[in-house]
Amino acid sequence: MLKNIDLTKKLDKKKYRDLMEEMTIKLAGLQREAKDLNIPVIILFEGWDAAGKGTLINQLIMPLDPRGFRVNPTSAPNDEERYRPFLWRFWTKIPAKGRLAIFDRSWYGRLLVERVEKMINKDDAKSSIRDINSFERMLADDGYVIIKLFLHISKSTQKKRFEKLEHNPSTKWKVTKEDWRNHKQYDRYYNAADEMLENTDTASASWTVIEAEDQRYATAKVYNTVIEVLQKRIDDIHAHEQKKRPTPEIILDPVKYSALDETDLSVSLEKPEYGELLKKYQKRIRDLEHEIYEKRIPVIVMYEGWDAAGKGGNIRRLTQNMDPRGYEVIPIAAPSAEELAHHYLWRFWNAIPKAGHISIFDRTWYGRVLVERIEGFCSENDGKRAYREICEAEHHITDFGAVILKFWLHISPEEQLARFEERQKTPYKQWKITEEDWRNREKWDKYKTAVDEMIYRTSTENAPWTILEANCKYYARIKALKTFIDVVEKAVERS
Amino acid sequence: MLKNIDLTKKLDKKKYRDLMEEMTIKLAGLQREAKDLNIPVIILFEGWDAAGKGTLINQLIMPLDPRGFRVNPTSAPNDEERYRPFLWRFWTKIPAKGRLAIFDRSWYGRLLVERVEKMINKDDAKSSIRDINSFERMLADDGYVIIKLFLHISKSTQKKRFEKLEHNPSTKWKVTKEDWRNHKQYDRYYNAADEMLENTDTASASWTVIEAEDQRYATAKVYNTVIEVLQKRIDDIHAHEQKKRPTPEIILDPVKYSALDETDLSVSLEKPEYGELLKKYQKRIRDLEHEIYEKRIPVIVMYEGWDAAGKGGNIRRLTQNMDPRGYEVIPIAAPSAEELAHHYLWRFWNAIPKAGHISIFDRTWYGRVLVERIEGFCSENDGKRAYREICEAEHHITDFGAVILKFWLHISPEEQLARFEERQKTPYKQWKITEEDWRNREKWDKYKTAVDEMIYRTSTENAPWTILEANCKYYARIKALKTFIDVVEKAVERS
Repeated sequence: MLKNIDLTKKLDKKKYRDLMEEMTIKLAGLQREAKDLNIPVIILFEGWDAAGKGTLINQLIMPLDPRGFRVNPTSAPNDEERYRPFLWRFWTKIPAKGRLAIFDRSWYGRLLVERVEKMINKDDAKSSIRDINSFERMLADDGYVIIKLFLHISKSTQKKRFEKLEHNPSTKWKVTKEDWRNHKQYDRYYNAADEMLENTDTASASWTVIEAEDQRYATAKVYNTVIEVLQKRIDDIHAHEQKKRPTPEIILDPVKYSALDETDLSVSLEKPEYGELLKKYQKRIRDLEHEIYEKRIPVIVMYEGWDAAGKGGNIRRLTQNMDPRGYEVIPIAAPSAEELAHHYLWRFWNAIPKAGHISIFDRTWYGRVLVERIEGFCSENDGKRAYREICEAEHHITDFGAVILKFWLHISPEEQLARFEERQKTPYKQWKITEEDWRNREKWDKYKTAVDEMIYRTSTENAPWTILEANCKYYARIKALKTFIDVVEKAVERS
Repeated sequence: MLKNIDLTKKLDKKKYRDLMEEMTIKLAGLQREAKDLNIPVIILFEGWDAAGKGTLINQLIMPLDPRGFRVNPTSAPNDEERYRPFLWRFWTKIPAKGRLAIFDRSWYGRLLVERVEKMINKDDAKSSIRDINSFERMLADDGYVIIKLFLHISKSTQKKRFEKLEHNPSTKWKVTKEDWRNHKQYDRYYNAADEMLENTDTASASWTVIEAEDQRYATAKVYNTVIEVLQKRIDDIHAHEQKKRPTPEIILDPVKYSALDETDLSVSLEKPEYGELLKKYQKRIRDLEHEIYEKRIPVIVMYEGWDAAGKGGNIRRLTQNMDPRGYEVIPIAAPSAEELAHHYLWRFWNAIPKAGHISIFDRTWYGRVLVERIEGFCSENDGKRAYREICEAEHHITDFGAVILKFWLHISPEEQLARFEERQKTPYKQWKITEEDWRNREKWDKYKTAVDEMIYRTSTENAPWTILEANCKYYARIKALKTFIDVVEKAVERS
């Protein structure tokens, strides 16, 4: 994409002033419209050192309402960031609906400096392209506007600018040895950048190359690009509004293979054997917790299951003997207003464990294809998209070396009824049973179809589901602990 | 406080079981009550290595609803944390109302390991005690329950436990050289701990020493302490409810000295001189931004002022030429639900800049003593307390070496009227003027009294107010830039 760029483009002062006067007011207006329409906007700046990123960003934000945007500078990852999948630090910074996030450099560092400096290998680069493209597509599908700008200058211009900065005592510090080293590698960076632009110029998020030799031209083109994209999205929304149709009723087609039907719920374990195994496994888990810390393996354990299937008790047995510094239990309740204003995966990304730590999710992002799907909180289309998005997100996480365990606690409807009734009878358990539980119970068949489809579509090699037969709580707990041990031991051996 | 502790206390198995059966149910119930009553609870564990913190924390959380608590392990500060005041990483982790936060080690590390290992000097230790006590008092005044537990074992017991751990191949790794080094310094740590307990055993947050040689006894005492404190708070709230009185009307006594009356609003600056100075100062600020980065000085600039006084434009002139990687503008709007559920200072702590960076607040925590006070969002008592709390928080931040600049943009009521009317006439400025602005305008006198009191009470040596005469916008902008330069230059020289 860089080959045919004409870097001689210029804009004279008079024309620039007239253009900017108009565009400044236009852009401020579009920001307000985007806010009113709840459109989240991401603008990222990539490009050569000395191409003028800082200045252009300052120009761009001048007319914006400061309450509506945030500039995110990107430097080398810190410890918190290095110990997580590379997109983590960007996922956690995506803007809420109606807000604008500007990234001064971005996740593309992965394919530029990290690639050229051989901090990652060819395979990593390939999977990074896939991860970036799916990340941007997820956001675009969720209504995010993504504007990607690459500021282009020639090798000789870069040299001239470095020299000019060095010449001035008060800006001398800005040019580092590393800058000159990179400058000498201009051609290698050029090739990497060109390849990157080709590989990530997608329908969801296309690139715009900004000819950045003439500052006036560059500023005007940045404004113009942002205005055009925002205007188009706003027009689309208004056009769409007029032909809005009622949401179609959700139809769940049962998948052919029912993992739940195949599960034998009659298995059980007696108390003495349970107690013995529990002690033994908990001891082993405590040791494993230390081993994964030593080897910097992140572990994610996801718990889903029927109401009253015993998730809480199961989690407690898993963590009972663990060192509290090494794990965290993350209970997922209904999303907050802040969480609803972001992509639904955002809040889970915020809870991704650091390498060497364990995050245990009490309910998970699978809520999207279970309760949210059945209760109609998201559209049928969103639900179907969610299978793909969740698999992609899990892939990204396991690419980083993380272990993902997914447990479905399965009980029979009769067992659930017995437990509900027992809860209602026991004073200190009454809080555990609500009207909603009874309402959910009535939808057992719908849920069962959704669970079967979920297990069918999201049991991947890198993140398979384990069904825990939970009519006998002892059995389910021991199976969870044993599965944890088996999977984590394998990961420790591999690494 | 450690001297008279009887470490021989024990509990037999039978009695322990009976006690725990009862207390487990009791504690689970209290957690739910605290949640319903919106009580935020902090429980922190300090004490000797090998005193059994991990095990006791696991015991304590067993009966708790995992959706209602979080365990925060404390290790050595990471880069993000080291570059901020030492309480920052704890401020950001305080629980929301109705939730419980358990700290596995805490801010007291400052007075133990950092003190004994001479990472801080005597003066730092003194100001740390003051900062910790005011931090806890602020939280307590806001309704937080703070339970501080110190797990005590003797030197010989510690030795025995280390040896036992070392003897077992699977736990050998747990005992480090550092542990033994600390063990040898038991007496010095003992003195530091004793002094710490004396100095921070306050009415807002008292210490409980847990005799931790017998694990059963320790567990029961931890439960008992938590139950007693929670029960007492819940009883207090119920007792209080019955004699609730109507909130008294807010009376603002004018302070004797009016800084606003003394301000000469006739000062002004012509455009050519303004343009020249602006360019010169912005250039200097760009250099200073680099110098504070080199010297790792954090800078906080706070903007308050009348509606339409020109805060936005002033901030933009300050940042126009800055490097976006070095500063952030933080607009303060009405608090979100999440923010309302925390202490009102919490959201500002979340935005404290890293050493070497600049945070510019567009409106600030002074909202507490301005709009919130006048609109009655907080009680009169809360408002008065706020002066002290804000001064203490600013003190803590400047203790760390930060620079705080506070600007009040002052205009006359006539000038405000003229600007309001102009905004209403100009199409692309109409969004800037709302019904609320007109309503606030009617309360001009009340606000003036509040502003005068604010400036009087919170103009401290370490964080003074600067009034910007803003009838002439040019004048106000240049004065802001000049003040920034003067103050920051001095800080750079000092460091």
